[in-house]
Amino acid sequence: MSNKGITPREKDYSQWYLDIIDRAELAENSPVRGAMVIKPYGYAIWENIQKELDRRIKERGCKNAYFPLFIPKSFFSREAEHVKGFAKECAIVTHYRLRESEDGSGVEVDPDAKLDEELIIRPTSETIMYDTFSRWITSWRDLPLKINQWVNVVRWEKRTRPFLRTSEFLWQEGHTVHETSQESLKEVLEVLEMYKGFAREVLALETLTGKKSESEKFAGAVDTFGVEAMMQDGKSLQFGTSHDLGQNFAKVFNIQFTNKEGNLEYPWQASWGVSTRMIGALVMSHSDDNGLVLPPSVAPIKVVIIPIYKEGDKDTVLEYSRGVLNKLSEKIENIEFDDRDFLSPGYKFNEWEKKGVPIRIEIGSRDIEDEKAIIVRRDTLEKEAVSISGIENYVENLLNEIQQNLLSRSNELLISNTHSVKSYEEFKDVISSKRGFVHAYWCGNPECEAKIKKETKATTRCQTQEGVKQIGKCIYCGEDGEEWVFGTSY
Amino acid sequence: MSNKGITPREKDYSQWYLDIIDRAELAENSPVRGAMVIKPYGYAIWENIQKELDRRIKERGCKNAYFPLFIPKSFFSREAEHVKGFAKECAIVTHYRLRESEDGSGVEVDPDAKLDEELIIRPTSETIMYDTFSRWITSWRDLPLKINQWVNVVRWEKRTRPFLRTSEFLWQEGHTVHETSQESLKEVLEVLEMYKGFAREVLALETLTGKKSESEKFAGAVDTFGVEAMMQDGKSLQFGTSHDLGQNFAKVFNIQFTNKEGNLEYPWQASWGVSTRMIGALVMSHSDDNGLVLPPSVAPIKVVIIPIYKEGDKDTVLEYSRGVLNKLSEKIENIEFDDRDFLSPGYKFNEWEKKGVPIRIEIGSRDIEDEKAIIVRRDTLEKEAVSISGIENYVENLLNEIQQNLLSRSNELLISNTHSVKSYEEFKDVISSKRGFVHAYWCGNPECEAKIKKETKATTRCQTQEGVKQIGKCIYCGEDGEEWVFGTSY
Repeated sequence: MSNKGITPREKDYSQWYLDIIDRAELAENSPVRGAMVIKPYGYAIWENIQKELDRRIKERGCKNAYFPLFIPKSFFSREAEHVKGFAKECAIVTHYRLRESEDGSGVEVDPDAKLDEELIIRPTSETIMYDTFSRWITSWRDLPLKINQWVNVVRWEKRTRPFLRTSEFLWQEGHTVHETSQESLKEVLEVLEMYKGFAREVLALETLTGKKSESEKFAGAVDTFGVEAMMQDGKSLQFGTSHDLGQNFAKVFNIQFTNKEGNLEYPWQASWGVSTRMIGALVMSHSDDNGLVLPPSVAPIKVVIIPIYKEGDKDTVLEYSRGVLNKLSEKIENIEFDDRDFLSPGYKFNEWEKKGVPIRIEIGSRDIEDEKAIIVRRDTLEKEAVSISGIENYVENLLNEIQQNLLSRSNELLISNTHSVKSYEEFKDVISSKRGFVHAYWCGNPECEAKIKKETKATTRCQTQEGVKQIGKCIYCGEDGEEWVFGTSY
Repeated sequence: MSNKGITPREKDYSQWYLDIIDRAELAENSPVRGAMVIKPYGYAIWENIQKELDRRIKERGCKNAYFPLFIPKSFFSREAEHVKGFAKECAIVTHYRLRESEDGSGVEVDPDAKLDEELIIRPTSETIMYDTFSRWITSWRDLPLKINQWVNVVRWEKRTRPFLRTSEFLWQEGHTVHETSQESLKEVLEVLEMYKGFAREVLALETLTGKKSESEKFAGAVDTFGVEAMMQDGKSLQFGTSHDLGQNFAKVFNIQFTNKEGNLEYPWQASWGVSTRMIGALVMSHSDDNGLVLPPSVAPIKVVIIPIYKEGDKDTVLEYSRGVLNKLSEKIENIEFDDRDFLSPGYKFNEWEKKGVPIRIEIGSRDIEDEKAIIVRRDTLEKEAVSISGIENYVENLLNEIQQNLLSRSNELLISNTHSVKSYEEFKDVISSKRGFVHAYWCGNPECEAKIKKETKATTRCQTQEGVKQIGKCIYCGEDGEEWVFGTSY
């Protein structure tokens, strides 16, 4: 573990984030530009996320499958808006063989092994999947079709940051096909709620959900809905999206079904995804200047026990501590017993604090005399001497309490960073001083949106369901508008 | 589901295999040459395999992580043997942007977006991982390092077959680093045993394990050990491999550690993997002319209940059948209740038989009168009327029996296809008439091996631990040799 300290948030928020990623050993840069190595501790968080989200996705009747990494260029470009959205940031395979270079210095691309048609590394899989769907679907009996996959995707981003924006990332992408437009839209919104519930119940993140503006929607979609989380610096982070694709892709990939009346129809489609970006949201929301803070539900290690001993009392302390471990193991999984001999207790406290382990238990000779153990909770750093009798119940309850406390904090963060403004002056003032989610009227004209973005860096984040009903004058042009949520985003 | 029949094994074994993949809905060809779509039913088998193997891998102290898909060309070529082995079959990314073509006909590769250094899509991850390992490892305290990842890899194969050989496939690759050569070799062999145990206990496959010859070993390894399974046509299928990498990669990637004596040393490495190929082995080993046969431990559906009713008795039969479902659900997971109204019982029997569901339960009015249900086991196709009272225990035991029976059959298949020959004439005779595992003496000279391969298509599969001790005259040249196992392989 790195011994270096963590830059305080106040001093440099961006560096603080990078420091946490590094010191908690979540990920590191790789030799490939913009791609990261997800280290074991970071990957264990991803596995916990995957396991629970996969369960919820399957509960919706969705089945996992696997489609190719490569998309033939001709497929990729069939839907005009879609290709426009992704063409500028895709990795392209042009050759399939290396040869020894003539000067013997190494290997080079073999010009004789040029592909007839280039292959695009999937940035998302609508095009490669829907071509196949056109063969799977013939009748209304084949609908709804609900497919999900957990895969890597590549988008050639210019500026990258670990977890938040990397050229390669891991995600799940769900793709569903429906008989009617209503049913498809219902799916889009229910998935949005699934993501919101997952964020709340598992990641302890309160979020805002709503419709994206035309300029912010997915390339090829009729409408995109997003889940937005609030970070500690007042910036918002798009956490996941759910797209109403209408019949756009069905028409270009010729997906058709015979409906109950015997007529041939194009079905209605939805797609939705969340990615390793969620780990970035987790880090930015809950952590503090001492390091990572993790909700117990996704923490790879929920409790760490640190026996504190000298030569004379080593055996006694270790034996007593193992007793505590056994008691706790009856109720709690993923407990770390840190009896490494070559590190001081102080070093260990620091290490597990940086790694965000929710509960630390310290046990020394004096605690044994008192039949107690010292319990330190990571979220508040509060310390308490707890009686050994019934400690397993105490710890179990405390894990729940930490989970709830992080959610309350996230909720407070969201509320305290939510503002409502009536004028552009006020808007600029709030955005430049506090950022946050800023509710304001907007006419819906992309020109106003673009100018606001240019002048303030704030973009429309989403329009909540309530926003549609709120009518007022556009803060930029004064025309009639509805309420939208603006913010500066990651 | 396709209504088409399945080509019998006797008529065309290759077509039989493809028919099973198709009719059981495991996978299908994709628009990308050599890459397949793994369909939900096939992917569910993979998930079951993953879940149990992942548990066993973690039990060995291995942690999961994720390394980039892309390998810079210069990394890829650092280990001379390694690049030689993979250069001829790799997908190469040369550009990172598309642009609109000038004639407006679509998109084309943007020549201005050429990468300075080409990126290879990982065919295996030694090179990209070990560069990172060189920064993770400094002291003996960092060892052993045991990392695994579950990822997609790409090898540009000329001839492809679903699951057995595809340009893109899914696998796990484990990479471990050790202080001593002995410890590394111990890992290599223990992993080999883990694979063998997994094949036996989970996939119901009896396998042969041993060392690969020089010409068959992994590019860059000191030694490769393989797990070989016997298929019904007498061909062998390499199921998984475990490589002793020695210090070959450590030296070129400059992985060094300070040993307990304070001296700088290169560590010793191992790597090992199994892939979606295992599904091909499953299919080929257990299935019959009626379709797929699956061991219960990996079957996505363990039991299917089919109520058989007419208009008059529909409610009664459905209610009774649901009662059976509830009873079974107390003991057994993944039961399918097939009450689809628009399909005949006969159609359903056929469908689930093709899909290899281990147990089918048929329930009609007469069975209700008798307080029985008809149970059909997929492995033997035997039918029995079983009393409803205690049916959950009966089914639970039967699932175990089927698992055991498939393993016994696999063991018999292996034994009955194992031959021992003393002369080249005998060798050629056995290989051309029966195939199988052929034990024969070989001097170890690659020239003899190459000539045997050219003349008979048989290759060395592996040398078992016992084989080393068996001394005799090489069947090809007559020089002194040891016993090796030959065979024709997939």
